[in-house]
Amino acid sequence: MSPPLHLRPSDPAWPEELRTIEHPPDELWLAGRPEVLARRPRVAVVGTRAPTPYGEVQAARIATFLALHGVSVVSGLARGIDALAHRAALEAGGPTLAVLGSGVDRPWPADELSERMAREGCLLSEFAPGQAPRRHHFPWRNRLISGLAQALVVVEAAHASGSLITARWALDQGREVFAVPGRVDHPMARGCHRLLRDGAALLEDPAELLPALGLEPVAGERTPPPSHPLVRALRGETLTADELAQRLRRPVAEVLVELVELELAGAVARGPGGLFRESGRRG
Amino acid sequence: MSPPLHLRPSDPAWPEELRTIEHPPDELWLAGRPEVLARRPRVAVVGTRAPTPYGEVQAARIATFLALHGVSVVSGLARGIDALAHRAALEAGGPTLAVLGSGVDRPWPADELSERMAREGCLLSEFAPGQAPRRHHFPWRNRLISGLAQALVVVEAAHASGSLITARWALDQGREVFAVPGRVDHPMARGCHRLLRDGAALLEDPAELLPALGLEPVAGERTPPPSHPLVRALRGETLTADELAQRLRRPVAEVLVELVELELAGAVARGPGGLFRESGRRG
Repeated sequence: MSPPLHLRPSDPAWPEELRTIEHPPDELWLAGRPEVLARRPRVAVVGTRAPTPYGEVQAARIATFLALHGVSVVSGLARGIDALAHRAALEAGGPTLAVLGSGVDRPWPADELSERMAREGCLLSEFAPGQAPRRHHFPWRNRLISGLAQALVVVEAAHASGSLITARWALDQGREVFAVPGRVDHPMARGCHRLLRDGAALLEDPAELLPALGLEPVAGERTPPPSHPLVRALRGETLTADELAQRLRRPVAEVLVELVELELAGAVARGPGGLFRESGRRG
Repeated sequence: MSPPLHLRPSDPAWPEELRTIEHPPDELWLAGRPEVLARRPRVAVVGTRAPTPYGEVQAARIATFLALHGVSVVSGLARGIDALAHRAALEAGGPTLAVLGSGVDRPWPADELSERMAREGCLLSEFAPGQAPRRHHFPWRNRLISGLAQALVVVEAAHASGSLITARWALDQGREVFAVPGRVDHPMARGCHRLLRDGAALLEDPAELLPALGLEPVAGERTPPPSHPLVRALRGETLTADELAQRLRRPVAEVLVELVELELAGAVARGPGGLFRESGRRG
């Protein structure tokens, strides 16, 4: 392994994102591929060291999706969700960046993944080479995991855990926070549910991350909803259910139920005063 | 079975909640125990006809909890979540009310549960006795399920489903809407996740319903969090992490991490400007 690269804020390779966060690092060391650090956008994917099979699948699915869209996956190299996210990004041939709580020459855990990250990805640390991992380093370096990324995804996390600390940094830094929900009877869903209550965005599908990154989905065209007699009867106007029922000479109960169904399907939109209009048209 | 009771808005037994909703019914028919209709508060518990085992357990858990707290469980008698909610309430000896899309003498589905509801619970309908169920009756009567209740819980629901129509009525009626999250890889969680995105409250534990009902939890005292040197060092003051680090002659990185951990544990609160104070104390 070549010696770690030493970066200062004056270096052109210094990550711009770290210039605007509170408590920025004074210096950084990098092992692995420096070009990975230059890749943007970045999404942080973090979570528990003890995931459920569901959490494992979600972490891999999200990281794979990001890698296939050229998005760099940032995490903390920890066992569990972090490791799964790095590994899935590597497998998909995408850029991935691990921020360590120790010197980049002493990654923890030191295993096949840390070696592979040093070859194919990038290890980054504010701690000097030779520095051993210390317990309090990890929550502190979490501010760099969130700070380097444009968005943070928490996959599974206990009620009060390192991932929630990362989410707290992310909010302070103005980064968008996403949380994957899970079953209410599993402790590893508690942290994500707590984040959702506190205003995090609910992530069902990784494609929902793209707008936060200024990217377009790689997907087929949207099929417009089929035309419905009731939508046609609106004729581009803005009407109440009562007006529409009169126009159609139908019971208001039936018309209102259909309008609510069409609203759920995205074919009509409801404005103030119970006024309905075709979706996408301006009332 | 005794003949259905016929109710008019002028009757003292007329549910007050229906006086303030849009499109109130003109009359109601009741089979079963009239005293069940008088029981308040009420919570509507609704969901899919095709629940997962997880959804089944959650519906039963929520309805049992409500019944044990004397809360009336309102639902629509449909197979799946509705039936499970009624059944769990009956098993726990609590009041439960089914609002039908047909005459109360022609409940649908007509089975052992509808018979038991007519004996131990209450069947209610705006459709006259003898009226057969019709497809469009069901989403329309959903407004009474939400309208009769102080809060609505959606347990599992497809992306565009009857339960979401009920939630839409509930929002229009100013009722609090709760949704139980689930796995993002299961279609029956989609409806609840959609509601959570639209601002529904996330329900992990049925006890979270009690404040919406003006009830106190039946539970032990809260244990105060153990005193922490850092909390003691705040001495009732409002300080930044830097000020606290100076006072303790400790590195700000360590102090800030501990403050964030204590914040997650509820022992300290953060105000504007990064000022920390003991939780519960006014800055």
